[in-house]
Amino acid sequence: MEDVVSVAEKLAKDMKEISVAEFFEKNRHFLGYENPTRSLLTAVKEAVDNALEFTCQANILPKVKVKVKQVGEEKYRICVEDNGPGILPEKVPYAFGKVLYGSAFHKLKQSRSLFGIGIKGACLYAQLTTGKPIKVTTSTGKKIHNFEIMIDVARNEPIVVSHSEEENPSHWHGLKVELEVVGRYVKGEASIQEYLKRTAMVNPFAEIVFDGPEGKEVFKRVIEKLPPQPMEIKPHPYGVQLGVLRRMLSTTKARNLIGFLTKDFSRVGRNSAFKICKLAKIPPSKKPQEIDKDESERLYKAMQMVKLASPPTNCLSPAGEEALIAGLKKEIKADYYVAVTRQPSVYSGFPFQVEVALAYGGQLPPESAVLLRFANRIPLLYHQGDCVITKAVKEVDWRRYGFSQPSNSLPSGPLAILVHFVSVWVPFTSEGKQAIANYPEIFKEVKLALQDAGRKLAKYIRKIRKMKERELRKSIFERYLPFVAEAVGELTDKKAEEILNKLKNMIRGGKIEGSTEKA
Amino acid sequence: MEDVVSVAEKLAKDMKEISVAEFFEKNRHFLGYENPTRSLLTAVKEAVDNALEFTCQANILPKVKVKVKQVGEEKYRICVEDNGPGILPEKVPYAFGKVLYGSAFHKLKQSRSLFGIGIKGACLYAQLTTGKPIKVTTSTGKKIHNFEIMIDVARNEPIVVSHSEEENPSHWHGLKVELEVVGRYVKGEASIQEYLKRTAMVNPFAEIVFDGPEGKEVFKRVIEKLPPQPMEIKPHPYGVQLGVLRRMLSTTKARNLIGFLTKDFSRVGRNSAFKICKLAKIPPSKKPQEIDKDESERLYKAMQMVKLASPPTNCLSPAGEEALIAGLKKEIKADYYVAVTRQPSVYSGFPFQVEVALAYGGQLPPESAVLLRFANRIPLLYHQGDCVITKAVKEVDWRRYGFSQPSNSLPSGPLAILVHFVSVWVPFTSEGKQAIANYPEIFKEVKLALQDAGRKLAKYIRKIRKMKERELRKSIFERYLPFVAEAVGELTDKKAEEILNKLKNMIRGGKIEGSTEKA
Repeated sequence: MEDVVSVAEKLAKDMKEISVAEFFEKNRHFLGYENPTRSLLTAVKEAVDNALEFTCQANILPKVKVKVKQVGEEKYRICVEDNGPGILPEKVPYAFGKVLYGSAFHKLKQSRSLFGIGIKGACLYAQLTTGKPIKVTTSTGKKIHNFEIMIDVARNEPIVVSHSEEENPSHWHGLKVELEVVGRYVKGEASIQEYLKRTAMVNPFAEIVFDGPEGKEVFKRVIEKLPPQPMEIKPHPYGVQLGVLRRMLSTTKARNLIGFLTKDFSRVGRNSAFKICKLAKIPPSKKPQEIDKDESERLYKAMQMVKLASPPTNCLSPAGEEALIAGLKKEIKADYYVAVTRQPSVYSGFPFQVEVALAYGGQLPPESAVLLRFANRIPLLYHQGDCVITKAVKEVDWRRYGFSQPSNSLPSGPLAILVHFVSVWVPFTSEGKQAIANYPEIFKEVKLALQDAGRKLAKYIRKIRKMKERELRKSIFERYLPFVAEAVGELTDKKAEEILNKLKNMIRGGKIEGSTEKA
Repeated sequence: MEDVVSVAEKLAKDMKEISVAEFFEKNRHFLGYENPTRSLLTAVKEAVDNALEFTCQANILPKVKVKVKQVGEEKYRICVEDNGPGILPEKVPYAFGKVLYGSAFHKLKQSRSLFGIGIKGACLYAQLTTGKPIKVTTSTGKKIHNFEIMIDVARNEPIVVSHSEEENPSHWHGLKVELEVVGRYVKGEASIQEYLKRTAMVNPFAEIVFDGPEGKEVFKRVIEKLPPQPMEIKPHPYGVQLGVLRRMLSTTKARNLIGFLTKDFSRVGRNSAFKICKLAKIPPSKKPQEIDKDESERLYKAMQMVKLASPPTNCLSPAGEEALIAGLKKEIKADYYVAVTRQPSVYSGFPFQVEVALAYGGQLPPESAVLLRFANRIPLLYHQGDCVITKAVKEVDWRRYGFSQPSNSLPSGPLAILVHFVSVWVPFTSEGKQAIANYPEIFKEVKLALQDAGRKLAKYIRKIRKMKERELRKSIFERYLPFVAEAVGELTDKKAEEILNKLKNMIRGGKIEGSTEKA
């Protein structure tokens, strides 16, 4: 045995702070940078998700240009430009050069960006693999600012490599980011092209131009109106843990407990607030900062006991059935489309809403169904097996709706299943934001939405099958018409040709059963 | 369209730094705190993993006491005590109250702790759910220090709630942590009991005493010797990315490039270093801090081009075949055990090693095999489906070794499959540290180890089957002996009884084929 004290001293000497930038640089696969193919896609995705988010927040119909150009063996230059509000120059270094920095994390609001990691992860990956800074060009309509930003990884602080201004006579506003990364460009399932196509589906109000290694592709805008802005809400008492409650008590601007309860939470009116105070045995006029540990524990319990309305759900902005169908139609050629937007619901105090759209037939491949998962208007391309959406799709009995379905699998058939989850807080299973955690409330809503849409599709499929059967009967009948006409001719002494023509007219006119569609 | 500038200003106002403690508090499911059952297990696990790690690092045979006591509805008090080196008092606040702080992250060394998050995550979860600080009692053999620590979540800084000292006449050294968390205690697959049992298997040199809600259980030490200490290594040039190389250049203590290459990397001798300098067209005497961007890019390329030996692998400390079998034997009653420790190998510049042990028959359930996954001596209980180990087990054709195996599944039969992965850097798929990422090099080694152990087991199974067949033949033979004896007696005019006895003796003595085992 070594001397215990000296071991403890050695251990103490080795203990160091780890910067969050170092952490994610080393564990970049947590963010989606796990191999060259996915890394290239992730970097593009972070930039495009941001472009759409901030353009929409400014109430501007988004136009996003995406360029991906090979500049070396496994090296690509990415450029993403939007027509959004731009970023104030003093914020640019932090927005791109400091991991865990952002506007969405501390809010309860439906947003494409959540963690304050996304685009910084792309910067980290770029400088790690090619050593190049991110180039940022931005303007709010005043001057144009050009930046080159890197991240001081050991301190998680931005480094401004260069900054220059230029005049902006055309009052351009927006943001353009350029990155150079090690990557691999692929086609197919988890490709940039597929990501943009799916993005276009649930953002049909956006125009996306993709200028890639294989030429230009335009995903056109088909809806000329933005969806309503999602709204920020206050936390609901049922969704707040004791530790968070204590923090809220110590930082609130409210002057007394009643004010705290009614102003800092949603769905707590004055009556409920007084009830909570009484249950907790704390005077309603007490200063929040003066509430001690025991009191806060009683307060926490009282907040769970008082009956309150569910959190407001008008804060959510789903795509809507019409837009979903429009989005599907423009990217998938099918025979039939149906969409269902469920009423909002609540998990762990967070409002959420599920939408489903189905496309059937047409040019869809006749084998297994295609599943298209989305969260807050962002397509999820990886970790399908881990996602609550996939679990719900497999749990639905698709045989009821006219499909075959191997056990524990997606249904078979020419079917595209689009599921869109929106919430003020998406419970992703990891920083890579590719799968939604399995909350029973979410599972249930997804399943109900699928069943609802499935029933509607089943009606159509039955109708189609009936029509086909009738067509078949008709064609059989027509094949035998000449013989019938001849026999009738012989019996009635009339010309067979004349009878045949009459019979044909009757079929065409729908006077013989099965000859036309009546449904 | 709103005024663009005012939108940009509003966005800028909302942008804020997010503390990593806030981040993991809100995303606690990333760390394993996703529901009460798993949360209780995770908190215990983090404390026990640390206890074993630091006791072993001090070359002390670990004795770990684990107490879990219910103190309220869904509320448990956890206490974990070890006989390790203790922590210096000045480091205690950071070791428990600052997320991303630790001794292992910046090293390349096989260790149970990696991220500098583990026990801080447990503190975060405790104060979030019960509001209680973590209690820490520690000594290096001098005075005993008692602490109560909380985390200032918004700043990610420790709060010392209380600190006192006491005399330590018995020179006790070690660490005791006490936490109170919301949780749920369960039995079975992913239980604390199962986690400790599996921990005891690959740490057979540790004594673990579990005092749980259902009584006391002792996992005894069966090996009185610690495995060799794993060693820290320098990074290998093939495993270093450009961004990291630049950081190393700017912070190295080496005075010139040759010194940098030979001292800060493993496997770079003077010859290789000169070759690298020549290829990179940089004078070997150049100061590392003076190497510019272009030069560092050339240096990076040159480092990949020069042929170097693989990183040293004597840095690893696997359990070893003998210890694995001893560990399995003490927890699983089977008829046959076999273990295989493969030679070390390398993925992405990181040395790693795979061990497999199989237990067969006895009290093992006859249905599906049980898979026991481990990384750096820690059992992995969740996310089995995502783990490269599981993929490799399913890929092995177990029918060759005498098992049936449904497609894409574990084999069926009374079999326990233990796989232990050790490395200086375990590529976990998430902070929860429950699954290893699918690197082809790792997949291959796991598969080879399984096949090697499988072949050995198959020999045993064949032997057993042969023995059973022989036993059967023997019993049939014995049944007919009296008739044979009588017939022979009649033919030879000797007493049948005498002949029968002789025949029986021959069988017992192994002189008649099939009567004894010869293999």
